[in-house]
Amino acid sequence: MKLLEERIQRDGTVKEGNILKVDSFLNHQMDVELFDLMGKEFRRLFADAPVNKILTIEASGIGIACVAALSFHVPVVFAKKTQTLNIDGQVFSSKVDSFTHKKTYDIIVSKKFLTPEDHILIIDDFLANGCAVLGLIDLIRAAGATLEGVGIAVEKGFQSGGQRLREMGIRLESLAIAESMDASTGKVTFREQPRQS
Amino acid sequence: MKLLEERIQRDGTVKEGNILKVDSFLNHQMDVELFDLMGKEFRRLFADAPVNKILTIEASGIGIACVAALSFHVPVVFAKKTQTLNIDGQVFSSKVDSFTHKKTYDIIVSKKFLTPEDHILIIDDFLANGCAVLGLIDLIRAAGATLEGVGIAVEKGFQSGGQRLREMGIRLESLAIAESMDASTGKVTFREQPRQS
Repeated sequence: MKLLEERIQRDGTVKEGNILKVDSFLNHQMDVELFDLMGKEFRRLFADAPVNKILTIEASGIGIACVAALSFHVPVVFAKKTQTLNIDGQVFSSKVDSFTHKKTYDIIVSKKFLTPEDHILIIDDFLANGCAVLGLIDLIRAAGATLEGVGIAVEKGFQSGGQRLREMGIRLESLAIAESMDASTGKVTFREQPRQS
Repeated sequence: MKLLEERIQRDGTVKEGNILKVDSFLNHQMDVELFDLMGKEFRRLFADAPVNKILTIEASGIGIACVAALSFHVPVVFAKKTQTLNIDGQVFSSKVDSFTHKKTYDIIVSKKFLTPEDHILIIDDFLANGCAVLGLIDLIRAAGATLEGVGIAVEKGFQSGGQRLREMGIRLESLAIAESMDASTGKVTFREQPRQS
């Protein structure tokens, strides 16, 4: 999505260690009008998928997921992060390793809100090593629901998450894929994506 | 807002200890089309306020805030909860006592995203004892920004938060105020609010 790539290049910051900061418009301050255009692009890309629910994970995925859900006319469910040791039987749970925070946490969704009838689109703001998305896929499988695809705002193409998901046969649409970044110049090079606007 | 009151009565669950569960449409599974109508109602109620930014707190406030922000045509900033002891100089921070989780945590917002030029509307899903909102007000004051008001989806009118904020002279609009709840019948009684739709 050219508009998002341009915005990342203009307002994002590249730091040493392949860190891309987009907190001025994506995941701390949030430009909801950009989110609305991103939601419409997800809708176009998944136009043929019978999505009836969007699944995301707290916290920064919730904004994009909710605004995108307006274009799909479906509800959103967000997985909660918890460090509670005793997970009761009322929830589906999975373990996620956080690279950023260097710890493992549980993610949970109430069994009431994921069922075998559900056709799920996962939406999240970032895809790096893919651990969060793989955790969400665990929950979907445990519920017997159908995964229709994964929509990501910004994929770090030089980390393994995107490749892992594509090799699993999962339909993955990332609106911008950062192929490489240069902290000295701030330049981000994006992967060409012909299907995208 | 009659529509929200009816939805709470229909799909909410009252439990012993004055607990109101609305997780099927408000704060775990989220009905974004209801959020859109709630956002339009906030816009109507704060039509004369020169709001240029919405502030909320992770996680469950983010969805309502982002969808409401589409009606205001302004960005959203969400405060992050952290238990990190070393808060650096790049953020405004405040301490919040969580009644639900029985602990104290820090909330932080980057100094980049709250400035003296900002006119802030706080939006959150629930108001009970008001600690989260008071923490957000702390951040706004530290930044020298202007608080235009507070918009809440569901206020527990029998807890002290609403009264405290109103006595401070803060403009508070809660779309539904639960005055009392009966766990044996599931009945919720709402406060009359003439200005609201």
